[in-house]
Amino acid sequence: MSKVTVHHLNNSRSTRVLWLLEELGIPYDIVQHKRGNDLLAQDDLKAVHPMGKAPVITVDGATIAESGACIEYILARFGQDSPLRVDPASKEYADYIYWMHCAEGSVMSTFILNMMLGRVASSEVRKQIMDPRIKTALSHIEAQLARHDGKGLVKPGLTAADIQMSTIYETVESMGLLPSYPSIEAFYKSMHANPHYKEAESKGGPVDFKAFLKAKS
Amino acid sequence: MSKVTVHHLNNSRSTRVLWLLEELGIPYDIVQHKRGNDLLAQDDLKAVHPMGKAPVITVDGATIAESGACIEYILARFGQDSPLRVDPASKEYADYIYWMHCAEGSVMSTFILNMMLGRVASSEVRKQIMDPRIKTALSHIEAQLARHDGKGLVKPGLTAADIQMSTIYETVESMGLLPSYPSIEAFYKSMHANPHYKEAESKGGPVDFKAFLKAKS
Repeated sequence: MSKVTVHHLNNSRSTRVLWLLEELGIPYDIVQHKRGNDLLAQDDLKAVHPMGKAPVITVDGATIAESGACIEYILARFGQDSPLRVDPASKEYADYIYWMHCAEGSVMSTFILNMMLGRVASSEVRKQIMDPRIKTALSHIEAQLARHDGKGLVKPGLTAADIQMSTIYETVESMGLLPSYPSIEAFYKSMHANPHYKEAESKGGPVDFKAFLKAKS
Repeated sequence: MSKVTVHHLNNSRSTRVLWLLEELGIPYDIVQHKRGNDLLAQDDLKAVHPMGKAPVITVDGATIAESGACIEYILARFGQDSPLRVDPASKEYADYIYWMHCAEGSVMSTFILNMMLGRVASSEVRKQIMDPRIKTALSHIEAQLARHDGKGLVKPGLTAADIQMSTIYETVESMGLLPSYPSIEAFYKSMHANPHYKEAESKGGPVDFKAFLKAKS
């Protein structure tokens, strides 16, 4: 049996890879990496992968970074029959592959930009540039989740695209925005009640992004 | 036969979707969307997709945004036998799926952050925060391309992951950084000599990101 090793960074986006593995019931090892006092990943991750970011997984000599890639690789290798995977021939695949890429492509990059502008620009400049973009993204996610009663983006049930998007919901919670988006809030609550998610947090440590959001002014 | 429609924004990341369709020989329609004087996409794209960004494709009633998702969807529907697609069962799949996600996940978000900090922060702050990150990302890409003599990220020959990453190389050129990365430069030149890429630029208009990089100071 192949062994999956997850290079996990505390309080980070890599929790979703642990969640996926828990859902699939795949045994795995965790190598714990710790953020420094500056909240950034430290050099030990650069020894694993040149970008120095988590998650990174290793399986049978292959090393894979980027959450979306880790998730797709794990499903291709170990989750062909899992209901978390959406088949490319199915009508749901368009939504599935969109949300799989949207998480880091459009949405997380908006949050990272918001965080960085909060550190170097005035509060007014940050708000003017970022608040409309955040509202556009979250309203879009809210509308899609509402179509399935807050139970999933692709259908009324969990898929790997929901797992890939889960970091977004943690960020929304840390920003105090959940009450404005009831379907996102419903999904967030069900995620935190999910025993596989709880097990991932238990092994990887809690997720709380508030410390990253301290603004300059 | 299904008809693919590409909602294309001039001088943008959606050129790579046109390139893919040219490589596959798939007929498609282009709906041209134009940037405003502020260089941003205008509201006509919001009528197509709530995020208001290009590319967006429509195929048989499905609407898909995000470049990586558009590329994966097109390959799943029309490119099953194309050498541009890397099979999930092959040993090259780990690299393929990584670069497919890395393009927008880690690399493009670094460039967008660099551009935005150039507008709101001092040149010193921008350089201090961003230059090491840009160097890490480009050195990583350079090393991977060098393994295949500058001919591809996954193997010494074009795959869809190279097409997904192509916008990165356009950005590197616009920043004047190509001479520091000879394998990226080699790929960039071969891309511009590729007849399918030329056809995509001919239909979609030229790509030149210099106008986006004008800094505050």
